[in-house]
Amino acid sequence: MTRVRVDLFSSLDGYTAAPDPEADNPMGEDWGPLTAAYAATRTFRQKVFGDTSGAGTTGLDESFAASFFTGVGAEIMGAAMFGLHAYPDDPDWKGWWGDQPPFGYPVYVLTHSAPRPSIPMAGGTTFEFRTGAIEDVLAEATIAAGGLDVRVGGGVRTAREFLRAGLVDDLHVAIAPIVLGRGAPVWDDLRGLESTHRVQTQVAESGTIHVTFTR
Amino acid sequence: MTRVRVDLFSSLDGYTAAPDPEADNPMGEDWGPLTAAYAATRTFRQKVFGDTSGAGTTGLDESFAASFFTGVGAEIMGAAMFGLHAYPDDPDWKGWWGDQPPFGYPVYVLTHSAPRPSIPMAGGTTFEFRTGAIEDVLAEATIAAGGLDVRVGGGVRTAREFLRAGLVDDLHVAIAPIVLGRGAPVWDDLRGLESTHRVQTQVAESGTIHVTFTR
Repeated sequence: MTRVRVDLFSSLDGYTAAPDPEADNPMGEDWGPLTAAYAATRTFRQKVFGDTSGAGTTGLDESFAASFFTGVGAEIMGAAMFGLHAYPDDPDWKGWWGDQPPFGYPVYVLTHSAPRPSIPMAGGTTFEFRTGAIEDVLAEATIAAGGLDVRVGGGVRTAREFLRAGLVDDLHVAIAPIVLGRGAPVWDDLRGLESTHRVQTQVAESGTIHVTFTR
Repeated sequence: MTRVRVDLFSSLDGYTAAPDPEADNPMGEDWGPLTAAYAATRTFRQKVFGDTSGAGTTGLDESFAASFFTGVGAEIMGAAMFGLHAYPDDPDWKGWWGDQPPFGYPVYVLTHSAPRPSIPMAGGTTFEFRTGAIEDVLAEATIAAGGLDVRVGGGVRTAREFLRAGLVDDLHVAIAPIVLGRGAPVWDDLRGLESTHRVQTQVAESGTIHVTFTR
């Protein structure tokens, strides 16, 4: 049975890094501190850096990192996360995920601009562009996932849109023990989410707080 | 050696209940869910309800509740927390803490209005009203505390004022696993607090996240 999953990073004050696609570092300087514990995990080092030595943390952070990469068959993301806003008029722009994006399944990019043809990439990822209602895109992604889960990959505004519409089964927020004082709000307009989902809180060795909302 | 302590309640999205002194329930309807785990502790039941049966939770929530009531020799609070804004023109108003307030030591009320004479109450509490700089009030409270700690008791704006001024040694925030979507912001203007204080995160059986900033 397909479940719809969202993973977010937050500070104690409820902000995630606000991406700036036109900056040298498009995720912004706050992204590093927000995700430091995640980047230190064995899974992340292996999947992202190709580190096969087995180095990296192995506690609760690692447990969440490992499950992040498991059981997903399709993904939905906002246009900004694909990088579409950076090159809105370039039909050859293939996103900022590199020649071999780390997905390996269909990725549905939500856009309000004109439809684009799909882009097959090395490694099994295909970027599809959709202008329809999020419910319709989710229905299509669910079929494409073939019984695996669908991830709503972000950005945070897209994730909150799915959450507010009641479309998310599993929300995981990794809260770094830092105060950012700025960024994109993670929790806006989600009052009462604990009444539709079961909440669990855990703390990792890194001090990261893992909050899950499950239904 | 006197330490300056602050204890706050927050939701996951960084709000605490915004008091409305003119409402029937001056702490607001969000105060109950925010403090439910605290109200369930053995210490709270004993200190506030006079329940001497020993009933109540005994885990991490209780540990923080017990230390809340230990080792404080003076307190500073904002005028709103005394209830001064509700009756600004009534010189006989003695606050909303009842005939025998639960302090038992000097309580310095910060006010911008005209100075008032101090109010001695049953049980050892004396309310003092001060219009000076927070550093001066803290110096006076520190002397009054006689080697015990000084609590900055709130509200949250007063607490943040002391935090921003670098006057707080120990901040404890009890984060309830709920999303309020409204209220008084707990963390505003505190970016980088983790660089001046050591942060520790723990989770209680209730799901409450206890974050402490210590220096």
